[in-house]
Amino acid sequence: MQKIAIIGLGLLGGSLGLALRGKEFVRLGWARRKETREEALRRGIVDESSENIEDIISQSDISILCLPIPRIIEFGEKYAAHFKKGSVVTDIGSVKGAITSPLEKALVLYGVFFIGSHPMAGTEKSGIEAAFSELYKGASVFITKTSQSSSAALETVKKFWQTINTRPVEIGVLEHDELVAHTSHLQHIAALAITEAVLDCDPDTLKLRYAGCAGGFKDTSRITSSSPQMWREIIEHNQPAVLESVKEFEKRWLNIIKIIENKDFDALYQEFAKGKKMRDEWLKSRGL
Amino acid sequence: MQKIAIIGLGLLGGSLGLALRGKEFVRLGWARRKETREEALRRGIVDESSENIEDIISQSDISILCLPIPRIIEFGEKYAAHFKKGSVVTDIGSVKGAITSPLEKALVLYGVFFIGSHPMAGTEKSGIEAAFSELYKGASVFITKTSQSSSAALETVKKFWQTINTRPVEIGVLEHDELVAHTSHLQHIAALAITEAVLDCDPDTLKLRYAGCAGGFKDTSRITSSSPQMWREIIEHNQPAVLESVKEFEKRWLNIIKIIENKDFDALYQEFAKGKKMRDEWLKSRGL
Repeated sequence: MQKIAIIGLGLLGGSLGLALRGKEFVRLGWARRKETREEALRRGIVDESSENIEDIISQSDISILCLPIPRIIEFGEKYAAHFKKGSVVTDIGSVKGAITSPLEKALVLYGVFFIGSHPMAGTEKSGIEAAFSELYKGASVFITKTSQSSSAALETVKKFWQTINTRPVEIGVLEHDELVAHTSHLQHIAALAITEAVLDCDPDTLKLRYAGCAGGFKDTSRITSSSPQMWREIIEHNQPAVLESVKEFEKRWLNIIKIIENKDFDALYQEFAKGKKMRDEWLKSRGL
Repeated sequence: MQKIAIIGLGLLGGSLGLALRGKEFVRLGWARRKETREEALRRGIVDESSENIEDIISQSDISILCLPIPRIIEFGEKYAAHFKKGSVVTDIGSVKGAITSPLEKALVLYGVFFIGSHPMAGTEKSGIEAAFSELYKGASVFITKTSQSSSAALETVKKFWQTINTRPVEIGVLEHDELVAHTSHLQHIAALAITEAVLDCDPDTLKLRYAGCAGGFKDTSRITSSSPQMWREIIEHNQPAVLESVKEFEKRWLNIIKIIENKDFDALYQEFAKGKKMRDEWLKSRGL
């Protein structure tokens, strides 16, 4: 049986361990906090754990860095010499450019292969207590390929993600970062602005606003309850692509506002109808 | 037992009928389409139905207009002479200014009391097939009071909504329209702009975008799947307040974008942390 290192046992790492239960891997887990490692063993998230990261990665055929973006980069470089020779290292980071270049460079020196991964899965919660086995079910997982990528390592990473019923999608690093700026990062900025526009007000107004907030507010703002540190890091490491997606949003926004200002409500109907059609088709493509 | 007229048996009217099942009312239902009336009887949404709207409203102590905004105004005026004398008419419309002034005027001539209602409940779906008994559970219901309002009628409407476990909140008409522009209408515009920014692109890009859309996109865009006609009408009848809420959003949005442009990621963290705190407190206030 292949050994797999899960480095970091939060929502992503913990859910990965749960999804891998009963699959053909020995799951070795590392987390900084002792309580987290104990919880991971107790819940059957990993088969073995150690406080010593080198112990784990030196015997693993695949290592998955389930850490915040800066820690993925830092750990990949710091422990480069300790991964098993010929093994494959991947990650779950939401940006790929900032992670892939330094880690490819650092690991190749030791005969270790790096292939970036980004599973499109998550919730607004974080920590091992939020982990659940179905988190990844049916999710797309972007697997980033560069001119340096080993085809065998790419295949290994792809197969790994298929094991837990996700849908691997090969993509270039830059293309990935532009894509997720549009489909994910932009939404976090919009949700934040929505939340502030509604809830950042004087206490009397706030009381009424609370009464006026229902399902529409709840869902459009949900991801504002995500980890502020994580989202700061994601946007920090993808700033240019995020600003491109912002322009794309502003173009659409300003067009809609202009229509409303002009009281051209037939045109407004057309925009709403177009948006509904596009979203309903996306839902349909997902079988939702 | 009091008789209650549910005029319009879509998502809102149908769910109201279901919520009222077993309460102390005889539920009389009207819908334009015969199939809808039959479906309402079959599912136990109403006790009796008729194609003749006058039949129903002339014998009802409370009439609830569960129709699109223009139909609420039109029907209220058209059938003003047919409501039972001394009865109370209310509605479920998402704006109150455009509805309250004409209907107060029209109904007072016939000794009928109008009190506007707006339950903060709904989904992106519509039609009787989407109706369910729990739609209103725990929802706030705004009850609009004007200088013309009868205290007794206001009390009747308040008690009515309490019967189905909602939380009535008295509010002025203008105050209501400004409030929901912020807590609900704004979100529909933002969700539309998000949807267009992500999905309005060439077919090759779209295929990738589909793969890149996960929970964040799904929830921030959910209400884009709502009825385009309904949202056109809501914004059409609340344009000035909507444009105010738009300004509120733009102020927050531009501030966040400037922070990202300036690469001031400590400040970005602070914004995300503030947003999370505000939303988590709102969630907590709802026991969520």
